[in-house]
Amino acid sequence: MNKQQIIEQIKKKKSFLCVGLDPDMDKIPAHLHEEEDPIYEFNTRIIDATAPYCVAYKPNTAFYEAYGLSGVSSLEKTIKYIKTNYPDHFLIADAKRGDIGNTSTMYARAFFNRLHADAITVAPYMGSDSVKPFLAFENKWAIVLGLTSNEGSHDFQQQLSNGRELYLNVIETCAKWGNSSNMMFVVGATKAAMFSEIRKLIPDHFLLVPGVGAQGGSLQEVCKHGMNKDVGLLVNSSRGIIFASNGTDFDTRAAMEAKLLAEEMAAILAGA
Amino acid sequence: MNKQQIIEQIKKKKSFLCVGLDPDMDKIPAHLHEEEDPIYEFNTRIIDATAPYCVAYKPNTAFYEAYGLSGVSSLEKTIKYIKTNYPDHFLIADAKRGDIGNTSTMYARAFFNRLHADAITVAPYMGSDSVKPFLAFENKWAIVLGLTSNEGSHDFQQQLSNGRELYLNVIETCAKWGNSSNMMFVVGATKAAMFSEIRKLIPDHFLLVPGVGAQGGSLQEVCKHGMNKDVGLLVNSSRGIIFASNGTDFDTRAAMEAKLLAEEMAAILAGA
Repeated sequence: MNKQQIIEQIKKKKSFLCVGLDPDMDKIPAHLHEEEDPIYEFNTRIIDATAPYCVAYKPNTAFYEAYGLSGVSSLEKTIKYIKTNYPDHFLIADAKRGDIGNTSTMYARAFFNRLHADAITVAPYMGSDSVKPFLAFENKWAIVLGLTSNEGSHDFQQQLSNGRELYLNVIETCAKWGNSSNMMFVVGATKAAMFSEIRKLIPDHFLLVPGVGAQGGSLQEVCKHGMNKDVGLLVNSSRGIIFASNGTDFDTRAAMEAKLLAEEMAAILAGA
Repeated sequence: MNKQQIIEQIKKKKSFLCVGLDPDMDKIPAHLHEEEDPIYEFNTRIIDATAPYCVAYKPNTAFYEAYGLSGVSSLEKTIKYIKTNYPDHFLIADAKRGDIGNTSTMYARAFFNRLHADAITVAPYMGSDSVKPFLAFENKWAIVLGLTSNEGSHDFQQQLSNGRELYLNVIETCAKWGNSSNMMFVVGATKAAMFSEIRKLIPDHFLLVPGVGAQGGSLQEVCKHGMNKDVGLLVNSSRGIIFASNGTDFDTRAAMEAKLLAEEMAAILAGA
């Protein structure tokens, strides 16, 4: 999926919402546990319910690998379901991979050629040869961790390096390896004030923004400091949507939460 | 597996060799391609051949994920094979995972409780809450990326941060979150001269050292600067051993390469 297609979907839907598909068997409604593949069943119903309100889905691989082979199978089936039924939705494998060159190439093949994800999140610590293999696939994306939403981002990302915070160096350096049509960056919603500084370095790149909702980030603040001429944001919500209810109404409640966020986004876009 | 058990195995075998199990269908001998599970078949024969000469195995998850569900199945079976037949060998899942706290916990469960790995490699960029969940399992290990063996280590790891290289800050900071009985660090063999500086910060930790062989690192240099009173090194070789031959003699040739390294290690230990 290319940049223009993403922008068109955002304009058409007046939404830049990404729904995080992080299934947790302890939180999936009890009545689904009787299904043959509860995770897949849960995901497909969440997807059907939320598809009108979002432009992207983001399964985090940890929540599938935790269930071994059956979990990995649920992930494969979920991605196939989205690609078959909602081909206009952008699909991000939130895997945070990164290894030496020949090994990153294996990961890129796994996620792009096998799973048919549009994008994969990538950890930057190992540098250029760990990131570049993900940029060699047409219409596929590497989404590099810039400034994450968690408390641990203070440990290294926000430490001074060459006179400024490490995450700014990471973003500026990584941006040189690709362009705004094959690379995005993760910037946490909990750091809204820092979006302005980031936008000076990468005015045209899309940002994947976790941390709205459960983690406390504000959509208004993110948009105020982070939006660009193409919108340039994919704002993710996971738990706040998919676990809005653990009853039989989990999918309609998920749709309600997604719709609320989409309406807030539409209002922001109308005012921009 | 605890620290004392690792040290005992090293002393008993006079080897601190770790064999990297990174199967690549393009390099696996042709006659194995007819087997039902060529990767598993390849691995088990490599393991049987090299077990006397090494104390650890390190499958890199990328080389299994690249083959989808069947690859992940090969990985599960390989780990089970090692744990059943060679329970004294230390098993490292080279996965380079790391995510926000609750998500890292899911990865820790996947690799420690499900796959029964002894250790997992962890990327430090996301900080404390991304690393600490891997330290909460008894006799299990987080092996944090410190200074990696690849060219890309210059991009961020070797950049100055607070007046010294970032990797030194990473090692010093991460070391505070655990201890030398639940944490190790990856330090590439290609940076042998930097081991001395690292040993000032973490005299007691084990180091996992990739980069000997195909990547050009010297075992002698690594030992000169990196060895401690407990040996404190697990030196990995992957391609140099497992792809020593692509004929029917691949396992005996792998054994020969492993034996050569083990003998070099024994000589170093005798001289230390």
